[in-house]
Amino acid sequence: MKIIDIKDTVVPIRSDIRNAYIDFGLMTVSVVALITDVLRDGKPVVGFGFNSNGRYAQQGLLRERFIPRLKAAAPESLLNEKGGNLDPEKIWASLMKNEKPGGHGDRSVAVGVIDMAVWDAVSKIEGVPLYRYLADRYRGGKADEKVSIYAAGGYYYPGKGLEALKQEMQSYLDRGYTTVKMKIGGASLDEDLRRIEAVLAVVGDGGNLAVDANGKFCIEEAITYAEALKPYGLRWYEEAGDPLDYALQAELAGHYEGPMATGENLFSMQDARNLIRHGGMRPNRDILQFDCALSYGLVEYMRTLEMLEESGWSRRSCIPHGGHQMCLNVAAGLGLGGNESYPDVFKPFNGFADRVPVEDGYVGFPDLPGIGLEAKNEPYKIMKELVDS
Amino acid sequence: MKIIDIKDTVVPIRSDIRNAYIDFGLMTVSVVALITDVLRDGKPVVGFGFNSNGRYAQQGLLRERFIPRLKAAAPESLLNEKGGNLDPEKIWASLMKNEKPGGHGDRSVAVGVIDMAVWDAVSKIEGVPLYRYLADRYRGGKADEKVSIYAAGGYYYPGKGLEALKQEMQSYLDRGYTTVKMKIGGASLDEDLRRIEAVLAVVGDGGNLAVDANGKFCIEEAITYAEALKPYGLRWYEEAGDPLDYALQAELAGHYEGPMATGENLFSMQDARNLIRHGGMRPNRDILQFDCALSYGLVEYMRTLEMLEESGWSRRSCIPHGGHQMCLNVAAGLGLGGNESYPDVFKPFNGFADRVPVEDGYVGFPDLPGIGLEAKNEPYKIMKELVDS
Repeated sequence: MKIIDIKDTVVPIRSDIRNAYIDFGLMTVSVVALITDVLRDGKPVVGFGFNSNGRYAQQGLLRERFIPRLKAAAPESLLNEKGGNLDPEKIWASLMKNEKPGGHGDRSVAVGVIDMAVWDAVSKIEGVPLYRYLADRYRGGKADEKVSIYAAGGYYYPGKGLEALKQEMQSYLDRGYTTVKMKIGGASLDEDLRRIEAVLAVVGDGGNLAVDANGKFCIEEAITYAEALKPYGLRWYEEAGDPLDYALQAELAGHYEGPMATGENLFSMQDARNLIRHGGMRPNRDILQFDCALSYGLVEYMRTLEMLEESGWSRRSCIPHGGHQMCLNVAAGLGLGGNESYPDVFKPFNGFADRVPVEDGYVGFPDLPGIGLEAKNEPYKIMKELVDS
Repeated sequence: MKIIDIKDTVVPIRSDIRNAYIDFGLMTVSVVALITDVLRDGKPVVGFGFNSNGRYAQQGLLRERFIPRLKAAAPESLLNEKGGNLDPEKIWASLMKNEKPGGHGDRSVAVGVIDMAVWDAVSKIEGVPLYRYLADRYRGGKADEKVSIYAAGGYYYPGKGLEALKQEMQSYLDRGYTTVKMKIGGASLDEDLRRIEAVLAVVGDGGNLAVDANGKFCIEEAITYAEALKPYGLRWYEEAGDPLDYALQAELAGHYEGPMATGENLFSMQDARNLIRHGGMRPNRDILQFDCALSYGLVEYMRTLEMLEESGWSRRSCIPHGGHQMCLNVAAGLGLGGNESYPDVFKPFNGFADRVPVEDGYVGFPDLPGIGLEAKNEPYKIMKELVDS
């Protein structure tokens, strides 16, 4: 077998939302189709990948470095031992040939997009859903049939008042979610507290609400917010300071006993390891949000999981960023703690399979080989067009 | 005044050399020309920038995100208070609009290339060499008229034996260098020690030789090499382990009393700060090699210098990677400890002004406004063609 072609395109996921750090008005996503010569039901198996929000499409890097390297590799060098399927680790090594260590940004997204397409193809060739494939290969067959998810929203946008915020959160509960997340740090502390109280009036217990500062705060602001947030007993307090300011995170832990979360802006095992070593994160309560679609894919994410276990962390502490079906499969197949979901933003790449409902804060999988992207009509149209282009 | 156009191109700097980590067979560099409407000697002032080796050209990111953002910015928003020149900080902020924190790789190169062109233009508009401009603006006029440099070479390449290595090093001495650097970690320890002894036979004192492992070693290998290197009293032992493995660096400091060096693969103030906080580096002997051309440019590098001074480090501990005239100007203008030089590799972007000789391990500047790129014929031909294209 071999890879016949690799195609890519760029799709806007523009939204009028903003977090404390950026506007999403020009956000884009790369979509990749990895076309193989393996036939299933008479058609070539195609793996699809895309990056999650926050880091832009990577057409330049894909076309300058990563797709040419993969196309230049000897086909047999990319196969598993039996030769019947692709080998994600070998493909990863081929992609990263002649890349120096360090500097994990942007290229980590380009590689993540291709890696997703590889795993989609691998599990389609095996004829099983990806989560099932991962459970069989790495976890003795033990898969979670559904995954705990939370509704990430509560963004700032022009003219959005407390009533609109409450309606948004109510609509998540109406759609089967029990836990929600909202942005903080893009307004004054007073206004953010009013926003938090408005949301709590909808979702009830503080344990149903996480808040996310998107790395905006200096240590003083982070502590000020920590003191103010304490009484609410929130689900977690996310990314208070710069994602690389491990000392800030460690100091903040001395001021906030509740769960804290971070990691969506750390894009390699090495960066994740530094958070674990130097960030004062607490294995008995804190949450790690590394997102394989932005971080060199699942091959690298498995290195991160190994590092975490060596450091005394449970995989259940991992609730990835990104709200996509790839991380959902990883969560179910490798036993993570849950997954993010964007019920309303980053269309059309938000959410999971169209006909699989969210119930009591959990979601399951369509009965399809691969990641299950074919079960989501709107983005699949784009992927189908890419293959036929 | 305003920026009229920004052009970019990609140039190969392929070499048959390798270090312990990568081959340089397909290495490329981005070149940018920033064309202004300011006239000097009857011609528009053009600022030039390029990235240094090791991290590839960035045409994709430049064209997808950074050049469009700069072109879209209101021209007056990019000027200094008096309106007569560009403001590098304001341009930097405009480039980084809607970029999330963390993930410092690739985009740090794209921004570094533009930032270099901005400083070149700014000092050309002022009619002074960049190092003089920097000294006047940031250091009360105190500039170093020449900079200590060392010859970086000693790469592995097919068929290169000890005699060829010695000839290479002798040729550096013949060209005015006193200190040289060679690669280690791409061969066995025994072979590397033979290579080191061969080079010492040429350069004499161990203080004239630095060695560079390019991040190849795990902690055990790093310590094994440390023990073996000790007796030679080398100038420094560079990048033993992964550039983000601060714990390895800190542990290694307990096994090697001589100077160590690292930093060329840390691309932001935040990453540099983590090295200082967690890497066990010793301000009284170790060397910091952050390269602004790969790391969001001089605007970000000045944040790094500020962080270093707040942490008790002298600027003289900084000897940047990259071997280009930008860092040479920064070294002279802001009082760093020296600069790298590649006498023979990464052509045509290696080395400094054609007619300014290296003497006793120091090099000076041509009497030209800006970075001085016009005094280096081969790369300047490429830049000139880019402007006229």
